[in-house]
Amino acid sequence: MTEKEIIERIRELFPQRAATVGIGDDAAVVGEQAITTDMLIEDVDFTRAVPVESIARKSLAVNLSDLAAMGAIPAYAVVALGIPQWLINSIDPFLRALAEFARQYDIDLVGGDLSRAEKLIIAITATGWVESRPLLRSGAHPGDRLYVSRPLGAAAGGLELLTRWKSIEPPSDLPYAQREFAVSAIRRLIEPEPEVKLGIALAGLTQITSCIDISDGLSTDLHHLCDASSAGAEIERQRIPVFPDLLGSGTALGIDARAAVLHGGEEYALLFTSAMRESELSTRLGRPVYAIGKMVSDKGVRIDGQPLEPGGFDHFAVK
Amino acid sequence: MTEKEIIERIRELFPQRAATVGIGDDAAVVGEQAITTDMLIEDVDFTRAVPVESIARKSLAVNLSDLAAMGAIPAYAVVALGIPQWLINSIDPFLRALAEFARQYDIDLVGGDLSRAEKLIIAITATGWVESRPLLRSGAHPGDRLYVSRPLGAAAGGLELLTRWKSIEPPSDLPYAQREFAVSAIRRLIEPEPEVKLGIALAGLTQITSCIDISDGLSTDLHHLCDASSAGAEIERQRIPVFPDLLGSGTALGIDARAAVLHGGEEYALLFTSAMRESELSTRLGRPVYAIGKMVSDKGVRIDGQPLEPGGFDHFAVK
Repeated sequence: MTEKEIIERIRELFPQRAATVGIGDDAAVVGEQAITTDMLIEDVDFTRAVPVESIARKSLAVNLSDLAAMGAIPAYAVVALGIPQWLINSIDPFLRALAEFARQYDIDLVGGDLSRAEKLIIAITATGWVESRPLLRSGAHPGDRLYVSRPLGAAAGGLELLTRWKSIEPPSDLPYAQREFAVSAIRRLIEPEPEVKLGIALAGLTQITSCIDISDGLSTDLHHLCDASSAGAEIERQRIPVFPDLLGSGTALGIDARAAVLHGGEEYALLFTSAMRESELSTRLGRPVYAIGKMVSDKGVRIDGQPLEPGGFDHFAVK
Repeated sequence: MTEKEIIERIRELFPQRAATVGIGDDAAVVGEQAITTDMLIEDVDFTRAVPVESIARKSLAVNLSDLAAMGAIPAYAVVALGIPQWLINSIDPFLRALAEFARQYDIDLVGGDLSRAEKLIIAITATGWVESRPLLRSGAHPGDRLYVSRPLGAAAGGLELLTRWKSIEPPSDLPYAQREFAVSAIRRLIEPEPEVKLGIALAGLTQITSCIDISDGLSTDLHHLCDASSAGAEIERQRIPVFPDLLGSGTALGIDARAAVLHGGEEYALLFTSAMRESELSTRLGRPVYAIGKMVSDKGVRIDGQPLEPGGFDHFAVK
């Protein structure tokens, strides 16, 4: 059974009455509230090689990214923690990092649940206010330009290096440029930045037609957006912004840059659509955003004219 | 570090701005919304001896019990699932039981998160509407009567038997009465009933001064209520309603009935206070509730004149 099949079954079994946006977008929307939940599990989503401060921040960041993709303003959150023995001595820096990150994004942690566990588990549910309208995956029209919010590929590169080295510190004999790249890529992976401000700004522009965050990889999330919008997409490899030095030091370090950019998960950049031009939209937003192609009426996703299959991670796919 | 110490640290680190009720009650309250989260973990909160249908129901029931303790009307929930290989084949009965239980309590499941895990993890966040006012732990006054909503002791008895037998089926050679008792006690443990209707009714009566659900055991949760209300309590052993046949078949099966009633966790009965008499309150509610003692101004909890220390479960206490 694939993740998609399980989600389909869930959709059938759980009728949506209260929700204006239910199962299947980045967050649910009920009234003016967006609500989303994410769980990070030791040895599935992170290892003990990652500092507890980064784990704490990331556990909230992934939820904030879902709120960002809906254009919601962070409001409050609850956290359920499964705490293993090894964390007990580091519980204070863990909690302090979580508190600091929550303050930075102006979200209140109002409650939680603690229990013992063999491995660290963090399940956070975050809520946000939807002011004018939620950004949905489903509003893209043929002819709209397709945008990503920032250069891609670092998270997958960082994951590759962290898995190889089992440490966030690169080997000491690495050339300077590769070392610098490796540190940045690993940092992008372990401390992702949710695009909260951008999401709120996009929701305020009526010209933005759809939005999703790139958590499963550009190819997979672009398929999600196309499916939800009953449309297709054509993108150009040349136009996709690439994380600095991924093609240089990243390639030298043995990272498959093309795969990292197209299929790498955990980017938490926003992928969105609008008829507006890149220069006009970047000006309106006061920051660069990157047009990588356009929506078309033919279903499916094509890159430089060739089909692009979803290549991201599926938790349940049979290998 | 004990659970209480960790919670104290969390209270210090996370200032409550949005919440009118923040960390430390059964659920947080923001505006008219109560929100609560609970996580159940395989081999910590249940084992594979428990049917997946019961695990699904219980994972929602514990949250509904928190809403009940606040007097909130269930509204919607999100669920994060860590799914191990063994559940994949039983995902359908698991989801169907969850859907049926959600429908029964009129709560919408609006979103979630799926991931792979070694052990089954279910983290549910439930929200409810607070109509007139939330029921708090902190409102009890000296002189108020102390109530429990139903007979106690079955959950701890059931846990003892389930742990001993590693099966929800009693051994086939057990005498009839003991078998009947064992089945009921185990069922009370694995399929707890949240007191949602009662909680809503209590919130509607201005004479109810405080409320908490008994998840950590009567002794521990009574201490929580007394601490929050800056008061003490005196209860009488004779008056505490005991689960049917616990003193008979339960004792014959080797269950420490006194410990099960006073300290057993996972009851999910409500413990609450009011100046109203038992007969009057039961009439108003249209169902029996049980006065077990009264609130007093002297701090601490006494039973038949002797101190009663918190004897419930602490996830983090050093053994």
